[in-house]
Amino acid sequence: MNNFKFYSPTEFIFGKGTQKKVGKSISQYGGSKVLLIYGGQSAEKSGLIKEVTDSLDDAGIGYVIMKGIQPNPTDDRVYEGITLTKENNVDFILAVGGGSVIDTAKAIALGAMYGGDFWDFYTRKAVPESALPVGVVLTIPAAGSEGSAASVITKKEGLIKISVGNDMLRPKFAIMNPELTMSLPWFQTACGITDMLCHIFERYFSNTPAQLVNAYSEAIMGDIMDQALSLRLDGNNYDARADIMWAGTIAHNGLCGVGKEEDWATHRIEHEVSALYNVAHGAGLACIAPAWMTFVAKRNPDTVWRFAINVMSVNPDGLDTEQIIAEGISLLKDFYHDLGLTTSLRELIGKEPDIDAMVKSLERNMGKTLGSYVPLSMEDCREIYQLAM
Amino acid sequence: MNNFKFYSPTEFIFGKGTQKKVGKSISQYGGSKVLLIYGGQSAEKSGLIKEVTDSLDDAGIGYVIMKGIQPNPTDDRVYEGITLTKENNVDFILAVGGGSVIDTAKAIALGAMYGGDFWDFYTRKAVPESALPVGVVLTIPAAGSEGSAASVITKKEGLIKISVGNDMLRPKFAIMNPELTMSLPWFQTACGITDMLCHIFERYFSNTPAQLVNAYSEAIMGDIMDQALSLRLDGNNYDARADIMWAGTIAHNGLCGVGKEEDWATHRIEHEVSALYNVAHGAGLACIAPAWMTFVAKRNPDTVWRFAINVMSVNPDGLDTEQIIAEGISLLKDFYHDLGLTTSLRELIGKEPDIDAMVKSLERNMGKTLGSYVPLSMEDCREIYQLAM
Repeated sequence: MNNFKFYSPTEFIFGKGTQKKVGKSISQYGGSKVLLIYGGQSAEKSGLIKEVTDSLDDAGIGYVIMKGIQPNPTDDRVYEGITLTKENNVDFILAVGGGSVIDTAKAIALGAMYGGDFWDFYTRKAVPESALPVGVVLTIPAAGSEGSAASVITKKEGLIKISVGNDMLRPKFAIMNPELTMSLPWFQTACGITDMLCHIFERYFSNTPAQLVNAYSEAIMGDIMDQALSLRLDGNNYDARADIMWAGTIAHNGLCGVGKEEDWATHRIEHEVSALYNVAHGAGLACIAPAWMTFVAKRNPDTVWRFAINVMSVNPDGLDTEQIIAEGISLLKDFYHDLGLTTSLRELIGKEPDIDAMVKSLERNMGKTLGSYVPLSMEDCREIYQLAM
Repeated sequence: MNNFKFYSPTEFIFGKGTQKKVGKSISQYGGSKVLLIYGGQSAEKSGLIKEVTDSLDDAGIGYVIMKGIQPNPTDDRVYEGITLTKENNVDFILAVGGGSVIDTAKAIALGAMYGGDFWDFYTRKAVPESALPVGVVLTIPAAGSEGSAASVITKKEGLIKISVGNDMLRPKFAIMNPELTMSLPWFQTACGITDMLCHIFERYFSNTPAQLVNAYSEAIMGDIMDQALSLRLDGNNYDARADIMWAGTIAHNGLCGVGKEEDWATHRIEHEVSALYNVAHGAGLACIAPAWMTFVAKRNPDTVWRFAINVMSVNPDGLDTEQIIAEGISLLKDFYHDLGLTTSLRELIGKEPDIDAMVKSLERNMGKTLGSYVPLSMEDCREIYQLAM
């Protein structure tokens, strides 16, 4: 196990009816004027936004609204939010939604306290020194942003999708009511599940010895898959929704990566797909993750073999390593198909993907190599895109 | 899954050499004058105290020392620490040691900010409103106090051992270097292992449905047992020490109890043993835990059966429920014996235990019933003491 720091100070307030406590939580963390950010009309129609603003009113907290945040959130909305924050003396950013809304909130929280362009933090031209506090009412379990230190934003000009990570960006609190996720379209539930699974893959596939962390990571991945299939049969299964929601948080708050070298190649390879074709990140991961595993298993089979047996429950009797791995990856693809997702990029985007463009953009964003379980050249990444076709 | 709040804001700084960063961490959390608390001479002889005070000196932090904290820490040292803190304008409490030292530090942190008697918080006569910040350099993985909200203190007069829990008591940081645990006597390592296992038992044995939490709890318990046996063979196995140290923290920071009704009968039944006979808490648990499981399995077998199969790896083929449970508990006892611990109270204290006295004290401290997996009367507790003989 490598040396590590684990710091997850977010207060997780979990369960039925908890969204009604949001005003009280903001007061507790010193907020008096809020920028309330959310996505589409579903949060309004379901009555959630009314519950949230009622709670703010009850706590005597003022608010300014910014809505219509889209998946793969873009820099233009961040600039708009920074302006709103400054003009209205906002002292707390409240995100009601999933990863796109939360990541936008975090970017605004950074940018509002900075004299320069917030994008400097994403391009590593500047290091964050302060940020406004962020709170979350989570409606989509997927990105794990409610408990993470990261924010991913796409610059519209050039479709550059990159992330920044800093402990200052960890939300003060995250209100998590699994009931709020029952009305999600199935596709969004499924994409969320592939995303949280992949957050564990990025940490699990590692060359660092980590018996304890691997054991509980496998347990979490196994439960995510079990509960995903339960939800496919009954989307109103509360305990399954609750497990998926909590799993999404601990998949990405750092717990599954303590003391390990992490990989992140799959995410980076996928980011080019969702940036170029504006497909859901989770749907892109269902194509890229099995392709990545197939590629890396040829050079470093150990953890792919372990994954096949301990997570995909391949019975190793009578099979050689290569067969065990092939069966494990095949079962993972079956799982994605059972969720109603494709594992083919061509099918996902409905045309022939422009691999040259994706590799070129990947190189521009990430340099010559990426990943650590197997360090990948740009030629390797090209092959992974091809395996995902 | 029940509604829950999970809040674990402690910064865990884990790995080789991390104790040299303690001065910097205290500065970061605003400390300028420290009460430095530790146990016996081993921390001095090993050079750890010198490393810590050098780090304080380097950071320009003053300190007052209080040493000689014993296992099952007592109220008299807390009063002494409160006086030292007030007399010396201490603004930060630093615990270097295990649970006894940390729990004493937490009690002092509460008492120093309170006009009345710190014991009021333990008897529920008062609720904490403020506390001095506490930091930890952990040397004994066991109690989990480095990441928990709890403190357990024994009142010398009447040997009353009770706990208080409040998020204010969660340490600001915990420095955790597994190398520091390599010089522990084996008995202390073994007692720490039984204690952390039992912190998971208290949450795992529950009637709340909790598939995800049960799955990762089983993974953690399984790894603790594996690594314990590795350490029995080679106490200098760094990765095993690291797993045990991190497991001790996540066994008790709340992660394994989210959304579940917890039990805690085993701990309370044991507290009477260690308070009356001043034996190590972990050694007492090795006697009480199997006896408790034997007793509760008669009334509520489900989770004991699951534990036998998923944690103790009992092969259920051809066995009925009762046999599976008996085999699981027998294997748990074997595990304790493999660690060199007894599972007999009589053997532990070297004489016939005074069950009447323990039951009387338990009733005085806890009332008429305790536990929730199976609510226990005082007569049930008497039977558990007898089963542990």
